[in-house]
Order: sequence, then C-alpha cells, then structure tokens
Amino acid sequence: NPSSSARVFSFFDRTLFSSAAPTPNLIRATLFPGDGIGPEIAESVKEVFKSAEVPIEWEEHYVGQEIDPRTQSFLTWESLESVRKNKVGLKGPMATPIGKGHRSLNLTLRKELNLYANVRPCYSLPGYKTRYDDVDLITIRENTEGEYSGLEHQVVRGVVESLKIITRQASLRVAEYAFHYAKAHGRERVSAIHKANIMQKTDGLFLKCCREVAEKYPDITYEEVVIDNCCMMLVKNPALFDVLVMPNLYGDIISDLCAGLIGGLGLTPSCNIGEGGIALAEAVHGSAPDIAGKNLANPTALMLSAVTMLRHLELHDKADRIQSAILATIAEGKYRTADLGGSSTTTDFTKAIIDHL
Amino acid sequence: NPSSSARVFSFFDRTLFSSAAPTPNLIRATLFPGDGIGPEIAESVKEVFKSAEVPIEWEEHYVGQEIDPRTQSFLTWESLESVRKNKVGLKGPMATPIGKGHRSLNLTLRKELNLYANVRPCYSLPGYKTRYDDVDLITIRENTEGEYSGLEHQVVRGVVESLKIITRQASLRVAEYAFHYAKAHGRERVSAIHKANIMQKTDGLFLKCCREVAEKYPDITYEEVVIDNCCMMLVKNPALFDVLVMPNLYGDIISDLCAGLIGGLGLTPSCNIGEGGIALAEAVHGSAPDIAGKNLANPTALMLSAVTMLRHLELHDKADRIQSAILATIAEGKYRTADLGGSSTTTDFTKAIIDHL
Ligand SMILES: CC(C)[C@H](C(=O)O)[C@@H](O)C(=O)O
Ligand SMILES: CC(C)[C@H](C(=O)O)[C@@H](O)C(=O)O
Repeated sequence: NPSSSARVFSFFDRTLFSSAAPTPNLIRATLFPGDGIGPEIAESVKEVFKSAEVPIEWEEHYVGQEIDPRTQSFLTWESLESVRKNKVGLKGPMATPIGKGHRSLNLTLRKELNLYANVRPCYSLPGYKTRYDDVDLITIRENTEGEYSGLEHQVVRGVVESLKIITRQASLRVAEYAFHYAKAHGRERVSAIHKANIMQKTDGLFLKCCREVAEKYPDITYEEVVIDNCCMMLVKNPALFDVLVMPNLYGDIISDLCAGLIGGLGLTPSCNIGEGGIALAEAVHGSAPDIAGKNLANPTALMLSAVTMLRHLELHDKADRIQSAILATIAEGKYRTADLGGSSTTTDFTKAIIDHL
Repeated sequence: NPSSSARVFSFFDRTLFSSAAPTPNLIRATLFPGDGIGPEIAESVKEVFKSAEVPIEWEEHYVGQEIDPRTQSFLTWESLESVRKNKVGLKGPMATPIGKGHRSLNLTLRKELNLYANVRPCYSLPGYKTRYDDVDLITIRENTEGEYSGLEHQVVRGVVESLKIITRQASLRVAEYAFHYAKAHGRERVSAIHKANIMQKTDGLFLKCCREVAEKYPDITYEEVVIDNCCMMLVKNPALFDVLVMPNLYGDIISDLCAGLIGGLGLTPSCNIGEGGIALAEAVHGSAPDIAGKNLANPTALMLSAVTMLRHLELHDKADRIQSAILATIAEGKYRTADLGGSSTTTDFTKAIIDHL
C-alpha cells in the first residue's frame, strides 16, 4: 500500500528530529507544525522569526492525525516531554486521528500537559474592516474540566447524561491567572462569565473562587455577567469588555464569538498556560486539508500565537517588532491571503511581513 | 407594615379576576402582566389589540414576585389552569420571588406547563440601525431539560457536578416542532446546533433525533453546526442561518446573541410551545424595576410576542396588521422609547402604533 508507506515515511521524517545540544543563548521551543496547512504556516513563522533574529531554536515534532504503524501512537512521549522540558511551544492545527476511540489531539494535549488556561487576545486589526472596529479584549478559558469532563452515560434507553465538573482548585487557578494577566498587562476589569442563576452549585463555585481572587486585586474592577447577556452585550458593544474569565464551554463559545467580531479564527492568537509555567501557543483554526500544500494558507493566527509565546518569554522587543510587521502588512492590504479577500500566496504574505520588520 | 399590606392588596386586586363566561366568538387568552414594567406594557398590548379589533378576551392573573401571605404561594393553581384551559397566553417579565428556595418563575412555568419549545423569531427592524441589517432567523430552543435539569451535587468538598440530561423524547419533540415550523413558515433550512464533538452521547443523541426528523422533511435542508462555530458565523454573517434548533443552554445563549444583533431583548418576540398545543408568548427582557410605573417602558417585545400568539391562533390578518404598525412606528422613528434612543412615553408610542394600524 503506497499511501500508507508514504505516511510512515513522513511520520519518521518529521518525528525523529536531531536532538543535538542547544546552541548557547538560544531558547529551545517545541514546534508541532500539525496537519494540513500546518507545515506551511509553521515554515512562515520560522522564516519571520529568523529574519527578526529571535533567539529561539525550534525543536520540531510531528503530532497529528498520522499514526505510527508500529506503536499505533499518534502522540509520543518524546513530543510531550519536549514541551515539558522547554516549557514553551507552538502548535499548528491538528486533525483528529482517524480510527476508533481517538479523542481530539487538542484535548489530549490539554490534559497531558495540564494546560489549565486558554488565553485568547482579540482585537480589531487596523485596516481589516469588519462590522466592529473597537474590539480589544482577552478571553481566558478554564481548559481542563467543566463540560469537557468526558463523563457521559446512558441512564436508560433514550436518556443520556453528561457530567459537568467544577472544582475549587481549577477555578482558583484560572481565576488567579486571569487577574495576574490583567495586572501584568495593565488591564482594568475582569468579568467572570457564568450561568449561576441556573447552575447554582457548579457555576456558583466558579464565581466564589473568582470573588476570592478578586479581593486580592483591589485595583482591578471585578464583575459577573450571565453568559446569555454577555453574548448579547458582546455583539452590541464589545468595547464594554476587557478581560473575561470563564468555565470551559463558555470559553469555547465566547472565544469563537469574539474571533468572529474581528474576522475569524484565521486572525486570532491563542496560548495555553500549563502548570509549572508551560506556555503552548496555538493556531485554533482547522487544518484546511483542501488548501494544504498549495501555498494559499494564512499564517497570521499561528504567527500572532508565536508572538504571545515571545511575550510569555518576556521577549517584548521581538514580540512588538513582529506583531507590528504583521499588522502593518494586513493594514497595507497589498498582500492578503484568499481567506482575507486577497490573492496573495503564503510565501508572498510572509515576505511582506519580513519587509515590514 | 404598610408596604406589605399594599402588596397584599395589589396581589388580590390583580389575582381575583372575574371568571364570567366568555363572550361568544371571543377567544379567551390568559394574560400574566408580571412585575415591574409588566403591567404598563401589557396595558399597551391590550389597547392595540382593542383598536385592531382582535377577537380576544383576556383572562388576567397575577404571577410574579409578590407572594400571597396566606398561602406563601407565588403561583396559583388557577393561573396555571387558565393557560391549560385557554391554551394561549401572554406573559410579561417576572422577577424571581424574594425569599429562600424560589426558582425562577420562568423555569417553573416551563416545567409546569411542559413548555418544550421556545421559539424566537429574530429579524432586523427596518429603520432601526444596528451593525446588521440582514438578520432573519428563528431560534428554537429545547426548553425543559439539558443543562437546566437542576441536578447538582457536591461530590466532595471543592468538587461539584451538574447533570445535563438529554432524552430522546424531548429531542424528538423539539426537532419535530422545528421542522414543522420551518415547513409551515416556508423556511428552507434547519440547522441543529450542538457540541457533539465533545459531548458525544448527550449532544449526539440530540443530533440523532434531529436527523431522524429531517428525513421526513426532504424539502428542507438540514445541517449540523458546532455551537462555537455557529456563534462565530452568526456575528460574521447571520444571513447564513434560517431556522436553528438546539438544546436548552445553547438556545439560551444563541437566542440572546441573535437578539443583540438586531438591537436587544426589548425588540425580540418569544413564544413557548407546550404539550397539547399550548402557546405562551412572552417578553424575555427583565422587569426593569427602575423605570416601572414611569410610562417609559418599551412594549415592543411583548407586543411582537402577542403577534406570535395571534399567528399560533391563525389570526394572520390581525397579526400582520399589528406587526406592520409596530414596525412602521419604529421605522418612522418619531416615537421611540428611551431604550431605543428616543424620548417617547409608553403611551405616546402606543398611540403611534394605533395610528399606524
Ligand atoms: C476542536 C475542539 C475540541 C476545540 C474545543 O472545543 O475546545 C476547539 O473548538 C477549541 O476551541 O479549541
Ligand atoms: C431568566 C433565566 C432563567 C432565563 C433562562 O436562562 O432560560 C432567561 O435567560 C431566558 O432566556 O428566558
């Protein structure tokens, strides 16, 4: 079967990466290019980082839908260990492995690396017109529990239940992160999003934890907003919001809603924060297999995610420089990929960013 | 205590309604004016209905936050029986009764009357500018189970769980209603909104039921959209959607999001469909106690809800006439209440609608 041997080849090719000792003064960061358009947009990030002389050495691993035929593994211990050791990483889109019983790789990574907070800065891009021009907010999503527990049962035929789990530990942890983030980034307000009028115990516990943390940050305004009302306010007037913190599913919903306000998942960065100071930045859009390998993909989300990684490393000069170049390229409008209404290739768009550096 | 006796008085005053036999040819409909601005906006509906010669006789009951001091009841058997008997009703906003252990009255009514589908037509109002001018969709929400089960436990200290329940019966019932509605209203597409990639059993069952029903409606396009993606698409391009059907919490969130697109809950009608052909229309906004009794409230949502009730009764001529008059008044822009940026009183706005009849 030629196609499966091609898969095997590409699997080894990309996985068995040289593990030479790091060059001194370089920061090692893990890179999971992922599936579909992943390798192209990862290439684009690497080029821009090189031109901007970012002191990062990438340690590249393949994690994605292709399964190692010998071990049936789609996620090796080495890949996980790489993030645990480097503490910073960047991931491209990953398709769910084909075959029975495979969970989403995103979920697996969140769980294995204890990525407890998903942070998505969302702001209107100058020159890229949507119905909104005044978005500037951060969604911070609890990333490990809630409605994503995976605990579901059939009670009797035709009656199924799903367990939402909220713990004090995970709620405090994400609330701490949200307030810490707000303070570190000069943000003024944290809104906890909930449905505690219905789920009094679960969302009630989440709010209780947020309130406890809020007390330690008297300079930051704290408020609680019911999720339905929050969504209504977001579409009416997103400028009302600053930092939003919420349980898993609400975060999933609201972060995508917010991405829609400024143009979609192709433009929004995301970073996952894990125990022990791990930061795994990621593009949250799909792997777009239809355009994979055609030099048509938009690397913006992955590149802006890489910028959040630089900020996590406190390489703010590099982060500013790259972010400005991306925004300037989009604002200029001369080089835009098809998803943004242009006809530029990935490589031309990337070159334009490098020219703006 | 004068204030509590005033309460008692108003309670009896509005509850002990004459139960004379209905005038022939008149349809009896239950009216729960509710709390806060409820009585004013209900008055406004009554006047418009009278001027439009709608053959409805209102049977008015007080249901709201005031508790009968003799029985400690906030919801009498008579009020429920009135809806069960008349099969049509209109409710204003109701505040949650003060005191321990009281659930939201909205939830209690949904449960007691088995109001299984909440239908909210949402369309851009001509002349009332928002960021969107192309909204024309219907959200249909399962209204009795899902995340609203009320089943929550503390497992151990600091760990709480909440049960989401999805049943085949309730899912089929709301799916049937959605397709029936789509067909009856000449709608072309039904989108089932879900998160079955995460909640495979619960949302999976919901989708399975939708698919079963979809097969009976070959002329209606059926699609499935993940809730996060749905929210993103709604804010980018709401014209992509037609009829949306979904479990309880997603319906709660998406119906409010959609209301936000066209201006807010003050403008959007809602109707609850129950077993045995019951239709209880309702304004879904709050009781706005701050402006209650000041002749400042906007009766639009309640009046448009009353229109959905007329459509349920197949009084389409009356429904069209009243709906056109409301839309014309808002489009004209001369009389608008404060929430819509105007300075008109409730009574002047109502008069303007009557003039447009
Ligand atoms: C792909 C899916 C499992 C994932 C989620 O629901 O968390 C995605 O929507 C996201 O937001 O990262
Ligand atoms: C008031 C609240 C209980 C209710 C709900 O969550 O269903 C409201 O948001 C609604 O949509 O009718």
